[in-house]
Amino acid sequence: MIERRVDLRSDTVTKPTEAMRAAMARAEVDDDVLGYDPTAARLEKEMAKIMGKEAALFVPSGTMANLISVLIHCEIRGSEVILGDYSHIHIYENGGISTIGGVHPRTIKNNEDGTMDIHLIEEAIRNPNFAICYPTTRLICLENSHAHSGGRCLTAEYTDKVGELAKKHGLKLHIDGARIFNASVALGVPVSRLVQAADSVTACLSKGLGAPAGTIIAGSKSFISKAKIVRKTLGGAMRQVGVICAAALVALEENVGKLESDHKKAKILAEGLNKIKGLKVDLASVETNIVYFEILEDSSITEIELFKYLEAHGILVMPEGPLKTRLVIHHQISESDVQYTLSCIQVILFFFFFFFLQAYLEIES
Amino acid sequence: MIERRVDLRSDTVTKPTEAMRAAMARAEVDDDVLGYDPTAARLEKEMAKIMGKEAALFVPSGTMANLISVLIHCEIRGSEVILGDYSHIHIYENGGISTIGGVHPRTIKNNEDGTMDIHLIEEAIRNPNFAICYPTTRLICLENSHAHSGGRCLTAEYTDKVGELAKKHGLKLHIDGARIFNASVALGVPVSRLVQAADSVTACLSKGLGAPAGTIIAGSKSFISKAKIVRKTLGGAMRQVGVICAAALVALEENVGKLESDHKKAKILAEGLNKIKGLKVDLASVETNIVYFEILEDSSITEIELFKYLEAHGILVMPEGPLKTRLVIHHQISESDVQYTLSCIQVILFFFFFFFLQAYLEIES
Amino acid sequence: MIERRVDLRSDTVTKPTEAMRAAMARAEVDDDVLGYDPTAARLEKEMAKIMGKEAALFVPSGTMANLISVLIHCEIRGSEVILGDYSHIHIYENGGISTIGGVHPRTIKNNEDGTMDIHLIEEAIRNPNFAICYPTTRLICLENSHAHSGGRCLTAEYTDKVGELAKKHGLKLHIDGARIFNASVALGVPVSRLVQAADSVTACLSKGLGAPAGTIIAGSKSFISKAKIVRKTLGGAMRQVGVICAAALVALEENVGKLESDHKKAKILAEGLNKIKGLKVDLASVETNIVYFEILEDSSITEIELFKYLEAHGILVMPEGPLKTRLVIHHQISESDVQYTLSCIQVILFFFFFFFLQAYLEIES
Amino acid sequence: MIERRVDLRSDTVTKPTEAMRAAMARAEVDDDVLGYDPTAARLEKEMAKIMGKEAALFVPSGTMANLISVLIHCEIRGSEVILGDYSHIHIYENGGISTIGGVHPRTIKNNEDGTMDIHLIEEAIRNPNFAICYPTTRLICLENSHAHSGGRCLTAEYTDKVGELAKKHGLKLHIDGARIFNASVALGVPVSRLVQAADSVTACLSKGLGAPAGTIIAGSKSFISKAKIVRKTLGGAMRQVGVICAAALVALEENVGKLESDHKKAKILAEGLNKIKGLKVDLASVETNIVYFEILEDSSITEIELFKYLEAHGILVMPEGPLKTRLVIHHQISESDVQYTLSCIQVILFFFFFFFLQAYLEIES
Repeated sequence: MIERRVDLRSDTVTKPTEAMRAAMARAEVDDDVLGYDPTAARLEKEMAKIMGKEAALFVPSGTMANLISVLIHCEIRGSEVILGDYSHIHIYENGGISTIGGVHPRTIKNNEDGTMDIHLIEEAIRNPNFAICYPTTRLICLENSHAHSGGRCLTAEYTDKVGELAKKHGLKLHIDGARIFNASVALGVPVSRLVQAADSVTACLSKGLGAPAGTIIAGSKSFISKAKIVRKTLGGAMRQVGVICAAALVALEENVGKLESDHKKAKILAEGLNKIKGLKVDLASVETNIVYFEILEDSSITEIELFKYLEAHGILVMPEGPLKTRLVIHHQISESDVQYTLSCIQVILFFFFFFFLQAYLEIES
Repeated sequence: MIERRVDLRSDTVTKPTEAMRAAMARAEVDDDVLGYDPTAARLEKEMAKIMGKEAALFVPSGTMANLISVLIHCEIRGSEVILGDYSHIHIYENGGISTIGGVHPRTIKNNEDGTMDIHLIEEAIRNPNFAICYPTTRLICLENSHAHSGGRCLTAEYTDKVGELAKKHGLKLHIDGARIFNASVALGVPVSRLVQAADSVTACLSKGLGAPAGTIIAGSKSFISKAKIVRKTLGGAMRQVGVICAAALVALEENVGKLESDHKKAKILAEGLNKIKGLKVDLASVETNIVYFEILEDSSITEIELFKYLEAHGILVMPEGPLKTRLVIHHQISESDVQYTLSCIQVILFFFFFFFLQAYLEIES
Repeated sequence: MIERRVDLRSDTVTKPTEAMRAAMARAEVDDDVLGYDPTAARLEKEMAKIMGKEAALFVPSGTMANLISVLIHCEIRGSEVILGDYSHIHIYENGGISTIGGVHPRTIKNNEDGTMDIHLIEEAIRNPNFAICYPTTRLICLENSHAHSGGRCLTAEYTDKVGELAKKHGLKLHIDGARIFNASVALGVPVSRLVQAADSVTACLSKGLGAPAGTIIAGSKSFISKAKIVRKTLGGAMRQVGVICAAALVALEENVGKLESDHKKAKILAEGLNKIKGLKVDLASVETNIVYFEILEDSSITEIELFKYLEAHGILVMPEGPLKTRLVIHHQISESDVQYTLSCIQVILFFFFFFFLQAYLEIES
Repeated sequence: MIERRVDLRSDTVTKPTEAMRAAMARAEVDDDVLGYDPTAARLEKEMAKIMGKEAALFVPSGTMANLISVLIHCEIRGSEVILGDYSHIHIYENGGISTIGGVHPRTIKNNEDGTMDIHLIEEAIRNPNFAICYPTTRLICLENSHAHSGGRCLTAEYTDKVGELAKKHGLKLHIDGARIFNASVALGVPVSRLVQAADSVTACLSKGLGAPAGTIIAGSKSFISKAKIVRKTLGGAMRQVGVICAAALVALEENVGKLESDHKKAKILAEGLNKIKGLKVDLASVETNIVYFEILEDSSITEIELFKYLEAHGILVMPEGPLKTRLVIHHQISESDVQYTLSCIQVILFFFFFFFLQAYLEIES
């Protein structure tokens, strides 16, 4: 029996392709801490261009990329950052901006589409005339696409408005663009346009793009100069890092073009799940490669039972609260994997419904 | 002409009484950093008893009292505190718990009555099984009475429930009791009962109680031992501090009994304001000594115009956003001051209404 | 029997005089957090003048004064401060500049006279060209008089040289002047001249000056504006703080003039101790009001035995390591107290010598 | 003309070998953040064994490895660490333990051999009875081999003594073992024995071992569990990190055995340099792969002139202060490279001597 594995927990689980592996094996490298690794430099230059910024820097992870960015914009003690109450930075990055960086977060409700109301952002900006008891607002953070809302995209227009607000109040704008390529493809707008208003932006290389590791930070030259120092402080500067950057350069060539197909597969999965009795998907929310489904409360199965069954069939998914489950599509999930997943879930839901019905009839009789 | 001054900005503006000044002049003191100042020790013992805790400590301010408490409960790097989105700690204390203490705040919506929904608190507690990307929840903070909601009181029952939740999850409970004596008087429940579930509690001596300065922190002996060290680190340990503590001891005797009258005057003020055309007060919210009034949008006067006029008549008030104004009653505001304030506000509102009407008629004609 | 108490542990143990108490009782005060307490403002203006700086601020303690100053000069994350390895900030202030402020200390050997070699300071300044692995040097701290070296004074010339070095490298200079009035009196140089080169300076009011509590920070107007915010963040802003400031104003009038006499008494004490068999004082080091004596190793008494005996006679002293003891003179130690102290120590040393001799003879026999 | 390049700046400049590249290309990988990358797990297990500890963790750099270790041992706010005044952590890691971690460093003089006097360490441990003004000593850090002293080795006996001292006072011991394999080979003592007394130890994979990037932290299971969380907080957790770990596994096999030869080449280089007129090498200090030479003051060449000339001949070296230069040998420096380097330096020194002599004669004549 062939063991099938369909890992839908995240698009971070992608494995390097043969082309990436070959690139790693022949990468030209040097000590990137002492000077410049030529392959890292090539990747950084390429990414700066894509993101429409002066310069870029490779760092080990998205968490470090966001941490460095917040730490630079809030380099003066007593800074406050405005960000979404369900932003990745606030919820899933260990609270590092406070616990490591001493930055005070001020959260705004994330709407269902991942935006924050602009008038709420403006209200949250501290009045500098009351500085005596206030921290100083120095930064606004957006996230595009917004993971917790199911990968929904912020438009260039919305981002521009937040950027104008930031400028008006002398604040900086940072975009956590972990999946900015997904947003770009879904909106049909170049990455550089989407992040035009931002002072800094991050883009993950190891999610949809499928590189083994790493995230890029882009911004002005002076911002990236500071980023190099903070990266060193945090311990994120690596020596012959070109071996990973080589894979990322391949990822850019190979996989940006595949994101559209990922989004299509996500829609197929979402529609399929929504048709299964006992489950519910907000189809409108599936704009990119993330699908959330809910197990309806009157369903006879618990999330844990579902997970166990799926795991037994090689399907890995990510729990998000008691009745909510996250599935993420990436280039190593085929249409066939999607169909297999749908079949498995349908079977178990049907089985549980039948079992529950029988148990009910037994009790009644 | 006698210049009248009615300072309604806060109950922190109270000035020491003759009895307090006399007590300061004769206070027995010693170096409270090297050992124990006898008057400080007496105040701390007295306050520990009132608050029903093992021990207590005098610190220069409520901000320091809250900061010390949060820093102790969250003494391990990577801690998160759950607190109200309009709590004093989150909004008005410079973000110090993060910018100085590296503690990550997770805010919950403050209801109109100053509470936070208990199920929302529970939802916000981090699952320790996902510690890899989460900070560790270690503390819940309440505020009683709750300043931003107009001085509304948290009942012992509510506080107990939050205390049980904290215990269930191995968390600590801190109560910012800057105005806990007001809550005690309004609810008719002893302070010690109101804070029974708390691991630490602060009580301000220089608000309604009228002492010149200082706040008390109370908790277990081991908590207070740590508090002494953190107070020293922050620079809050003072030498012959007994001179201030002596005044606070008098304040306890003189002024706790006057809080009920303060609350009555606040109600008179609130009802009077609510009757003035163009203003609105949520009378139900006036449980203690704080009154918020709104200038109705169709009113012809702006907040700034109102302030200027009131200041010219010796009445000082505190702006809270574009159309909201805060008035606070304390033992040095007499019933006559309340009536004077009402008259002045009525006159200016009437004048502005008349002026606006005339301007309107002129335009129409 | 009259119980005599001679508290030589520190000049912080001074108690407020009758004049100070009277001043506290009649002090004109206001809420110093909301606006300006007139007495605090008067003290701050007076002290700014004495220290030759644009502005000054009252804070609860010397620890907070130094912490605020370092935090402002090192307000950008990643700062390093150069200071003496036996400076008060480094050894006796809980490491707060790091543990609260995240500032990295780089220590230089304190010479016997409290100075640091200027070429060593210069060597320790980080080369900005290697910023990639270095913190950024932003501040040099001096301490005058230098407590750990026995209260020795830094001359204006030395301080100027350090100031020039700081300027040359774009650094700030802070002087911990806890006992700067002692240094001024001992050197016969005005305080303002001694701290001329400094960007910020602190002066304790509750040491030799004898006020109940508090320290002044002085510097430029913009520095003091920032200091107000940091004081609030740390919780050091107090309401009707004028009651303490009133005492400090009296202290300035009453006690600056007495410091010279304190220094004389310290010399008498030092010379007296040095003549006692079994003790040793470095007389050259007694420039101000601090006397260190060593118990010679061949002496038959331990420090602990000496302390117990002295305490039984009402004399309190401060241990500093196994064989070193600190005595500090202040305006409430009379010449008679000094003589009494010398007598007591002489008696016990003699007794122990005799006892030891006898024990020795007994063993021998 | 063939361009020769001899990079002696550091052993971090080594480039991955063909075998490493092949291993990277075929490495079995998985998402190391969500679960376990099998290759990372294999490396960590292997390294734990070599280092004689329960568990190990791969992190991007030595700076992060030390930072994580210090942050865990000093996880409670108010901690102090005792470490060498010329330790890598104190001088070359951006002061991150303070600026990011809020840990207060207390430095002890590093002796010429990289040790710190044990009685000085003991003296520096804070007396917990004076906790009121002291931070709490929680950690001692050693560095083996000690980079700044020229790669000298700490013996197992010395380390054991420091370990006993740590235990006696309830402190932890961390060893920065960036070049612990060099120390092991030079002393002829297994790594596990050298670090036996340590609670945590780091070992660099990208220095002498020649892997492209990464450092291992080893310690108890509970320590490594915490290290995973701190690594995530800092942003050091990487996805398919097995691609780098695969190279490191090869490095362990290929290059540990070559360290002895590196040390021999270092001695040849050191002896050669010491024979050159105008240079001086402390031959006794060359225990491993690092050589420091001084340009004698009466020499006619400056360090900058020397660097320029060497760079023009493809030889890269590392300046360390005005007259001190560091050369580091690694497995990609051949004996022929060493001879070439010696020749180049000899020629330029001779030339400068001659030129200087001529210039001198011209002036004289």
